[in-house]
Amino acid sequence: MSKNLTSRTEDYSKWYNELVVKADLAENSAVRGCMVIKPYGYAIWEKMQAELDRMFKETGHQNAYFPLFVPKSLFEAEEKNAEGFAKECAIVTHYRLQNDPDNEGKLRVDPEAKLEEELIVRPTSEAIIWNTYKGWIQSYRDLPLLINQWANVVRWEMRTRLFLRTAEFLWQEGHTAHATKQEAIDETVQMNDVYAEFAEHFMAMPVIKGVKTESERFAGALDTYCIEALMQDGKALQAGTSHFLGQNFAKAFDVKFTNNEGKQDYVWATSWGVSTRLMGALIMTHSDDKGLVLPPKLAPIQVVIVPIYKTDDQFETISNVANGIVKELRSLGVSCKYDHRTTHRPGAKFAQHELQGVPLRVAIGPKDLANGTVELARRDTLTKEVIALDGLVKKIDALLEEIQDALFNKALDFRSSHITEVETFEEFKDVLETKTGFISAHWDGTAETEQKIKEITKATIRCIPMDVVKEAGSCVYSGKPSTNKVLFAKAY
Amino acid sequence: MSKNLTSRTEDYSKWYNELVVKADLAENSAVRGCMVIKPYGYAIWEKMQAELDRMFKETGHQNAYFPLFVPKSLFEAEEKNAEGFAKECAIVTHYRLQNDPDNEGKLRVDPEAKLEEELIVRPTSEAIIWNTYKGWIQSYRDLPLLINQWANVVRWEMRTRLFLRTAEFLWQEGHTAHATKQEAIDETVQMNDVYAEFAEHFMAMPVIKGVKTESERFAGALDTYCIEALMQDGKALQAGTSHFLGQNFAKAFDVKFTNNEGKQDYVWATSWGVSTRLMGALIMTHSDDKGLVLPPKLAPIQVVIVPIYKTDDQFETISNVANGIVKELRSLGVSCKYDHRTTHRPGAKFAQHELQGVPLRVAIGPKDLANGTVELARRDTLTKEVIALDGLVKKIDALLEEIQDALFNKALDFRSSHITEVETFEEFKDVLETKTGFISAHWDGTAETEQKIKEITKATIRCIPMDVVKEAGSCVYSGKPSTNKVLFAKAY
Repeated sequence: MSKNLTSRTEDYSKWYNELVVKADLAENSAVRGCMVIKPYGYAIWEKMQAELDRMFKETGHQNAYFPLFVPKSLFEAEEKNAEGFAKECAIVTHYRLQNDPDNEGKLRVDPEAKLEEELIVRPTSEAIIWNTYKGWIQSYRDLPLLINQWANVVRWEMRTRLFLRTAEFLWQEGHTAHATKQEAIDETVQMNDVYAEFAEHFMAMPVIKGVKTESERFAGALDTYCIEALMQDGKALQAGTSHFLGQNFAKAFDVKFTNNEGKQDYVWATSWGVSTRLMGALIMTHSDDKGLVLPPKLAPIQVVIVPIYKTDDQFETISNVANGIVKELRSLGVSCKYDHRTTHRPGAKFAQHELQGVPLRVAIGPKDLANGTVELARRDTLTKEVIALDGLVKKIDALLEEIQDALFNKALDFRSSHITEVETFEEFKDVLETKTGFISAHWDGTAETEQKIKEITKATIRCIPMDVVKEAGSCVYSGKPSTNKVLFAKAY
Repeated sequence: MSKNLTSRTEDYSKWYNELVVKADLAENSAVRGCMVIKPYGYAIWEKMQAELDRMFKETGHQNAYFPLFVPKSLFEAEEKNAEGFAKECAIVTHYRLQNDPDNEGKLRVDPEAKLEEELIVRPTSEAIIWNTYKGWIQSYRDLPLLINQWANVVRWEMRTRLFLRTAEFLWQEGHTAHATKQEAIDETVQMNDVYAEFAEHFMAMPVIKGVKTESERFAGALDTYCIEALMQDGKALQAGTSHFLGQNFAKAFDVKFTNNEGKQDYVWATSWGVSTRLMGALIMTHSDDKGLVLPPKLAPIQVVIVPIYKTDDQFETISNVANGIVKELRSLGVSCKYDHRTTHRPGAKFAQHELQGVPLRVAIGPKDLANGTVELARRDTLTKEVIALDGLVKKIDALLEEIQDALFNKALDFRSSHITEVETFEEFKDVLETKTGFISAHWDGTAETEQKIKEITKATIRCIPMDVVKEAGSCVYSGKPSTNKVLFAKAY
């Protein structure tokens, strides 16, 4: 099995990169900035998808699929959105290869096969979707239109990191259309709440719900709501965003509807998305120097059973017991694997399951069986106990819930102790360098101050929390009046 | 609601196109040859995906995700594969847009942002995947490697039709690696069997399992297995393929493993896929002049309940009964919708559900309730009956199974009556023009004859059936000796 990981204190970034690769989650590919999501990593993503998809459907959304490509003329129709993404677009210009006359056995782009209009590989799908919605919406009866898409998108990022920032990534993007401004705003907030519930309930990752400042908004949005999480190194990570798009896209694509009074108006829009970036957030929230730590609700394998034996007879006896446990656990909906590979020794198996974050490990040897016990090991606390075989399944079922809660509470404690209220800019800089985490401070509301603070400290305003308290104060940088504090942090 | 469809006898192709659009399955997009899959169509695709995914996992496969782009140098590594797809590749050449100096508010491709190496948008992923497998496979212990990917692919087709042939389509592609030739062949056959089981059991679409001739093989394969279905217009449709790739890709990407005797050998490969083309096959197998007909196992809504009322009191009474039925049906795992929209009259609802192929419709009016009955309508037979409310749920549950079987048997009867054995080429041409369907005939085994027959009749060899009987004969075209009959047809 793999060598030890670099420790988090030694080099957090290196620890992360090593962990992603060694735990078989993902790896870099031959294509610049694009990753391969390996089966184990993909299995976690599938569990995330399943829960999110259920939550979207429960809130009335349907899935659909729109083209990968956006013709340039559509792409540029909503100017702010186009401007925001123009510098990171992969562009298809040709549709055919031909034999290279100068290079036997090689191909080259056929210069005759140039597209009349270039196609942008979608960095996000507002343009192509709103161009389609134009044909779907005539009357208030067609509204609200509540659609989600699971898709790949491409943003040509210069500096990439597995899961956190890749040129191609997988995501879902919701695109909804509404008759009124208020309904669209309500939808925007609702979906941000759905993301928060998913993050906290399934990822065991506490998040702060808030609104972005103008300079951090999605290109083309009137307001961007977000959930912000705190990683173990004290840096924030934007885990999901939900945008109130106003009538910008409806105007750019001329999408009007007849309201119930017979009058024409532009449609109100939202869009919202989370991506495989959540995998990075999940890893960095819980994992330790031994490897991945997974909340049971997203673990592809929740319990692994490892037999420890010397003789075939022992193996058979242990297997009988193990298979019984597997069966019982599965009937409770617990995913359990009996790891009876003969190619690996128990020690190597233990190391692998630890590295891959399997929440619970059951080891069964002949002595255990004689005593009617097994050894049960918890991945999150790295503790072991010998417990009675009798009642094991119930114990496991309860422990999985306990672990889920414990992970959330541990992450919540860490975050709670890493939100620091500061009054002066000296304090601000000091906390950012020494303690790290979120800084709650007054801000004068100007993009100029925000930019200055970013230049000096690399910290950005992560959000204005939804539950912010109105209180008069003076800006931590400019000293100008402020009506409430906002949350700053260095961020991924 | 929509006007009547063109009838199948009038213009089958027009009927299909109209049906796809009017039943809200898909539509053409602003991107040449790319479709938008609408929510109702996507819901059917999701049901297909769920069953296939389960079947893949039950046969030991795991999902993963590989990059959308293939660098040109990797793409051309396996020459036959590259040659096969070179003429239909979308090619990314640039990674940035800039403001167009000649066109205020417009963007243009930034000539400075040309990629050093062009990226092909995957038409299939053997190249990028086998380049990745090189890093994953060292020893026989790493084999077999059984991986599937759900993804979008792009093939720049010149003539496109919704679902049947689109520039971008959704599919799954399995890519497996094996230590021995036999194991790879067994996998190829197994996955073709999985496809056949899915087609027959879930799509209610009978298929013929067989092997392609050399000229119809996948580019880069040593053998292509397939399932072939027969559409109502007597044309065949290739519904799924499974390829034995030999060591071609292992050699192209230098993927060797150490076998259990310590010797190095190239790895054996398979790949297999089905796509959103199955949606076209599903539609054309069962639907009629009234619209879509769906097998219950793939219907997003299996039962719809429509209230017929004049007064609020009536509506309330009916709704109480309807909600009770919905609840009972859902507890049996039957998807049921109570269509209580006030924006549409019952007639319009009936027309819509008929057009969209909901297998069973329950209509409830005040008179029915007084009599303790409801009206139950079957979409497949277009028959109605008044039946007792008491026992309705059980009846519905049984009927859904009956409909599933009836659709399969109807399609099977049609196909059975459309496989014609012919001995002479005159007969061949006559059957093809008048009766249509599959033609079973002797063929001399040469690509030349196959090509000639195709030129003259437009019919191709669909497959050499798995259950073919060896029998000496003479080729229907050349008169040369033949060892068995093969299946010809015109095809989609």
